[in-house]
Amino acid sequence: MKLQSLINQAAEDKNHTVAVAEAEDSEVIEAVTQAVAKNLANFMLFGDRDKILGLLEEKGTHFIHDERIQIFPTNSKLMAAEHAVNAVNLKKANVLMKGNIPTATLLKAVLNKEFGLRTGNVLSHVAAFEVPHYSRLILITDAAMNITPDLMQKAQIIHNSVEIARSIGINTPKVAPIAAIEEVNPTMQATLDAASLTLMNQRGQIQNCIVDGPLALDNAISKLAAKHKGIQSNVAGEADILLVPTLEVGNTLYKSLIYFAGAKVGAVIAGAKAPIVLTSRADTAESKLYSLALAICSA
Amino acid sequence: MKLQSLINQAAEDKNHTVAVAEAEDSEVIEAVTQAVAKNLANFMLFGDRDKILGLLEEKGTHFIHDERIQIFPTNSKLMAAEHAVNAVNLKKANVLMKGNIPTATLLKAVLNKEFGLRTGNVLSHVAAFEVPHYSRLILITDAAMNITPDLMQKAQIIHNSVEIARSIGINTPKVAPIAAIEEVNPTMQATLDAASLTLMNQRGQIQNCIVDGPLALDNAISKLAAKHKGIQSNVAGEADILLVPTLEVGNTLYKSLIYFAGAKVGAVIAGAKAPIVLTSRADTAESKLYSLALAICSA
Repeated sequence: MKLQSLINQAAEDKNHTVAVAEAEDSEVIEAVTQAVAKNLANFMLFGDRDKILGLLEEKGTHFIHDERIQIFPTNSKLMAAEHAVNAVNLKKANVLMKGNIPTATLLKAVLNKEFGLRTGNVLSHVAAFEVPHYSRLILITDAAMNITPDLMQKAQIIHNSVEIARSIGINTPKVAPIAAIEEVNPTMQATLDAASLTLMNQRGQIQNCIVDGPLALDNAISKLAAKHKGIQSNVAGEADILLVPTLEVGNTLYKSLIYFAGAKVGAVIAGAKAPIVLTSRADTAESKLYSLALAICSA
Repeated sequence: MKLQSLINQAAEDKNHTVAVAEAEDSEVIEAVTQAVAKNLANFMLFGDRDKILGLLEEKGTHFIHDERIQIFPTNSKLMAAEHAVNAVNLKKANVLMKGNIPTATLLKAVLNKEFGLRTGNVLSHVAAFEVPHYSRLILITDAAMNITPDLMQKAQIIHNSVEIARSIGINTPKVAPIAAIEEVNPTMQATLDAASLTLMNQRGQIQNCIVDGPLALDNAISKLAAKHKGIQSNVAGEADILLVPTLEVGNTLYKSLIYFAGAKVGAVIAGAKAPIVLTSRADTAESKLYSLALAICSA
């Protein structure tokens, strides 16, 4: 499966609407107009009306009159964040997207007790990678939100990623809790948590997936490596989801895939009432589109 | 620089001798005979004489009579480990190589107070990677020995890797202590340690290199990524050595480079009186040769 298939799937699912907080940014508008051109969703753009209109015009005058794009004027970044979040809260939109505001400002609105999007679950980052010469998409979680999740947070992070996997057609994803080794070692917390998560899955505490770890990265993604080490596991060599033990592992793996392996990626924040797209300036236009498609598929 | 250049350099340096603990293993003998064929070093093979002779004959009868290969009969894995280590201790050899014995057995002999190879320094793993489409070798430390090194251990791990870098012609290596972000954050120990290591370098406590961190992986190895983020640093975008914060980060990055990025690697254990080669069965013959070459260069 390739990331392009997410764009195809998002285009098939109708009636999705993305609320963009502070859309007055050239790169954000680029992603919005590309998504509209591919008919992925409708967009509610919150921000400075005139600036947004100017940016839309740059991409093509027809976008100004496209009924799939609506503009909602706001006077500040905070107001844009709150109104975009509330649009999702009121079910006028089912995906939230960060525009030209700090992540913290958006998340503060997301966590607002009155109109926010909390569910009680941990919010976590789920990234879908297409790696050259590798046949299937690999989901990695959590490379951006949770620094050192504890066991129960890891269980929720798995749950969030499983929901995303199922939304893109991986019905019973195989989940590998990653560690440096395959054995349980009391000096390595990642291996203890991996063992507990595996058992929690066997006892039905983590559902709709097969969890088996600890696995080092090679044994999670290469059947040959797992066979070489004599590892018996339903997940080894065919993991769909890699649960990294810490944010540092996830962040480094994420960047290694992009910069060294030439991978493509789309990512969302899961665990709120609606998926959240947090693209950054460093992301390519292609990556932003994949993130939007992943969010729309999982909405 | 490519890994092949290490083989060339090792072949130029004469009078190196590698002591192999328990050499009676087909893959070990394969690496030994390849190294001899390229004239990288002399070898002292400890183990079962008849088995070693049999394996040498399989690779070519001339190896049995090659004066660059000497066999020293031993009766057990422990004895092979102790004799190989003592050969280095007595300066009959200047590189130690693990054969068909558990790593723990070899390291126990290495740490023996009477004839072992301690220097008081931390032993650490240094891996030199050649990544496709990337112009220079990247050293990564520590992906295999130290689980969660503290600040002073990290300083020694840097020192060990700097010695290795200098031995292969990187005279003032640029060292990036890796974290998930570029800013100091009290909830992320890796960023605090990175800041301290940077200052220790500025105060002369870590020498013969330029340390600057915390840096996330992208900013350590891509000038464009660093520029995009506005990071001012002498190391950003051109790091020679990546100091990973934990073994889990290192192990996952290591395997990502091998399995996803198609990288080649050679690795040694540094910090003892002589470099130690700890290849495993999962390593390719090519990788074992690169490890031997790196050890010989740094001996």
